Amino acid sequence: MTKDWGLKDLLGLEGLGAAQIEAILDAAASFKKASPKDLLAGRTVAFLFSEPSTRTRSSFEQAALRLGAEALSFSAAGSSLAKGETMLDTMRNLEAVGVTHFVVRHERSGVLEDLAPRIGASVINAGDGWHEHPTQALLDLMTLRERWGSFEGRRVVVLGDVRHSRVARSNLFALKSLGAEVTFCGPTPLVPDAFSALGARVSHDVEEALRGADAVNVLRLQLERMEQGFVPSLADYARAYQLTPARAALMKPDALVLHPGPMNRGVEIASEAADGPRSVILEQVANGVFVRMAALALCDRARTDAAPAPRRTAARVRHG
Amino acid sequence: MTKDWGLKDLLGLEGLGAAQIEAILDAAASFKKASPKDLLAGRTVAFLFSEPSTRTRSSFEQAALRLGAEALSFSAAGSSLAKGETMLDTMRNLEAVGVTHFVVRHERSGVLEDLAPRIGASVINAGDGWHEHPTQALLDLMTLRERWGSFEGRRVVVLGDVRHSRVARSNLFALKSLGAEVTFCGPTPLVPDAFSALGARVSHDVEEALRGADAVNVLRLQLERMEQGFVPSLADYARAYQLTPARAALMKPDALVLHPGPMNRGVEIASEAADGPRSVILEQVANGVFVRMAALALCDRARTDAAPAPRRTAARVRHG
Amino acid sequence: MTKDWGLKDLLGLEGLGAAQIEAILDAAASFKKASPKDLLAGRTVAFLFSEPSTRTRSSFEQAALRLGAEALSFSAAGSSLAKGETMLDTMRNLEAVGVTHFVVRHERSGVLEDLAPRIGASVINAGDGWHEHPTQALLDLMTLRERWGSFEGRRVVVLGDVRHSRVARSNLFALKSLGAEVTFCGPTPLVPDAFSALGARVSHDVEEALRGADAVNVLRLQLERMEQGFVPSLADYARAYQLTPARAALMKPDALVLHPGPMNRGVEIASEAADGPRSVILEQVANGVFVRMAALALCDRARTDAAPAPRRTAARVRHG
Repeated sequence: MTKDWGLKDLLGLEGLGAAQIEAILDAAASFKKASPKDLLAGRTVAFLFSEPSTRTRSSFEQAALRLGAEALSFSAAGSSLAKGETMLDTMRNLEAVGVTHFVVRHERSGVLEDLAPRIGASVINAGDGWHEHPTQALLDLMTLRERWGSFEGRRVVVLGDVRHSRVARSNLFALKSLGAEVTFCGPTPLVPDAFSALGARVSHDVEEALRGADAVNVLRLQLERMEQGFVPSLADYARAYQLTPARAALMKPDALVLHPGPMNRGVEIASEAADGPRSVILEQVANGVFVRMAALALCDRARTDAAPAPRRTAARVRHG
Repeated sequence: MTKDWGLKDLLGLEGLGAAQIEAILDAAASFKKASPKDLLAGRTVAFLFSEPSTRTRSSFEQAALRLGAEALSFSAAGSSLAKGETMLDTMRNLEAVGVTHFVVRHERSGVLEDLAPRIGASVINAGDGWHEHPTQALLDLMTLRERWGSFEGRRVVVLGDVRHSRVARSNLFALKSLGAEVTFCGPTPLVPDAFSALGARVSHDVEEALRGADAVNVLRLQLERMEQGFVPSLADYARAYQLTPARAALMKPDALVLHPGPMNRGVEIASEAADGPRSVILEQVANGVFVRMAALALCDRARTDAAPAPRRTAARVRHG
Repeated sequence: MTKDWGLKDLLGLEGLGAAQIEAILDAAASFKKASPKDLLAGRTVAFLFSEPSTRTRSSFEQAALRLGAEALSFSAAGSSLAKGETMLDTMRNLEAVGVTHFVVRHERSGVLEDLAPRIGASVINAGDGWHEHPTQALLDLMTLRERWGSFEGRRVVVLGDVRHSRVARSNLFALKSLGAEVTFCGPTPLVPDAFSALGARVSHDVEEALRGADAVNVLRLQLERMEQGFVPSLADYARAYQLTPARAALMKPDALVLHPGPMNRGVEIASEAADGPRSVILEQVANGVFVRMAALALCDRARTDAAPAPRRTAARVRHG
């Protein structure tokens, strides 16, 4: 496992090769079969979340517990970050306290790129601004791979507010690495044509985009996008882009419906589509725990380092 | 144990028979003698509290830990509920993450009646609006049963703001099931005569109500009741209804004083009565842990189901 | 270990003798060599923090976990304290739930002196107003003792906002007990001459104070001190009192730089001094876990009491 991986941190999926992504998915699949309860005994996971989260945080916490790690209950709200300490100092202090893994959600895109190389503990990105949310994309991939086996030739539509979505970006990078074709679909303000430079096909016609697709990943529409002028109204958006059962039926017969949650039912997705037979939304959530177990286990200094005991001075390999 | 119970959830005490209530109290009593540390190993308890709580939440958390279950540190404040996700979606997601028990406090009465049948995990009501707070009443009953043995012919006074009290309602339902007689006592705005329809005797004369009683359960007076016009002033309320040592002395010589906490000392109860020899207030709190261990253990799908392994599709039996 | 200690609580260092302080440091040193994972099995630690904290809280939490104790996730914000319950009632209730240790941070100086004797559980002060922060001073002492062996004849400068610092006071009491000489240094509004009555030398000249010193403990300057008129401006303060590499060089060649954190880099300390070779700031944080393990283990009723099992009625010995 460590041979194929060799990274200290998991900050994003951009730049990861197919072998590395498959290594995480393989580890996740093995954890789904059996939890090695003591694999991360003695490790301590700290959560630094400056944005609210239900499923991501509880999923990581569950993942840590299943591998025997301790989870600190610290959260940024009641912390020294509120006193103006730099995030680097906060993390170095927590590392000195014994933290071996940081799971971080932050509203600033790319903030971890600077921080992670400057601390010894592993850093796992749980969502940074509009940039990346690697474990969310990995759980999408795990769910798809369980059904498909391979991604070669598969067509995945990412539907909705791509512009403000770290999930869309992480999905795109990983799906392309594994050989799938990705279409970003939504109104121009939310899916600018310039996003084709990232390697996605861009479409503003939901019926055209869905026709013959293998899966659709429906993105949450933040309700404040209307006030911000990105969509004329929620009703207009729903009329033009909501995933309805009729639109879902344009995809291949066994095509899948994904949503990263939390859902705004009746806005970006109709309840009939969210709860229908094509939906794998709760499978995604269940797989999230295994993907996060894999991320914690692979990004583990004590096991990754060559020496039998953790060495604080080991070189820190990072992706990108 | 499972034979006598057979319920997935504990949403309230209304409609439970004496045998079911006794089954919980028996389980609690056995846990008070010895904690089977691995009984709920592998279970995960999530807390969804939309109202503040000290003793109820920490008591449930302690109960979970003593039975070997994990307690997720999630709370509603920093969650997707804040993003507008439905509570059902939040609970389904947490269930997919691995949650087996939800302990829920909510400001809306009856909200769990709709939710519980739609998820597989067990749901335990930790207080919903003015409706029910079953484990609070059960710990009152456990404390009384330890002293009394049987409830037949016992007279219990519930004193104070019955109107806004889920504790009063849950106590009434259970005490009557077990054969005790219940008097609701307080000023008319807080104890409307119509409450006699629930099966309690209603009194507006505290001396009359307490005379010869076996126990009094003193309810907290929310300080905002004065602003809302339910009482003319805290001083007036205290003069007319505060449990003083003199009033407590009207009860039987070995009568007991209970309070669900948190206390407003000097308002609904005098410190001398709260801390006096008749008071079992801290015994109530200590028993709360055992009652909650019983609730978690009895409402456990994996043990309740007939099949050796948990079955997700098993019929969900509920009370009421 | 218990023979040398014999205290139920750790509320402050004032009045502790050298033997008691050395007992804590010895216990901490032994825990640094090996963690007896089951020493506090069955104990439950509750955190009552009415002020934000990163390192202190996570350090105590880590200490509890390493000794096998459970840590309740309760915090004062979402608690009955918000409902007006007295702190004593809250603590008595948590004790009834099973809490054996309280770790308390409170904005009111001296609040624990009244509370601790009235409950059976152990109380450890994690910072009360401007009064004391004993475990912070103890981790400073542990770090210094590892380098120095003995404190006899050592000169320690506490630099900065001594007036509002519980860290300064706790350091002074303990350093003097162990034979070191302490200089408080800063501008008069932050280091009033009257503080010499506590037993420290007072200086308003940073170069004079640092010359020939063995260590400097740099205190955080709260940014609101400017608005409050204690310093003319942050820039003025930094010019006159910031620990720069040049000023640090006035101390002995192997002198040490400490800071209790969180740091305001560029205000009370220059980054070059904070991250330089004399700095033991992260060692302090790491030692904090061991000091807190010692505090939890020494203040443990079940082990301190003479009887083999915990006795609720044992006399409560306290310092002061």
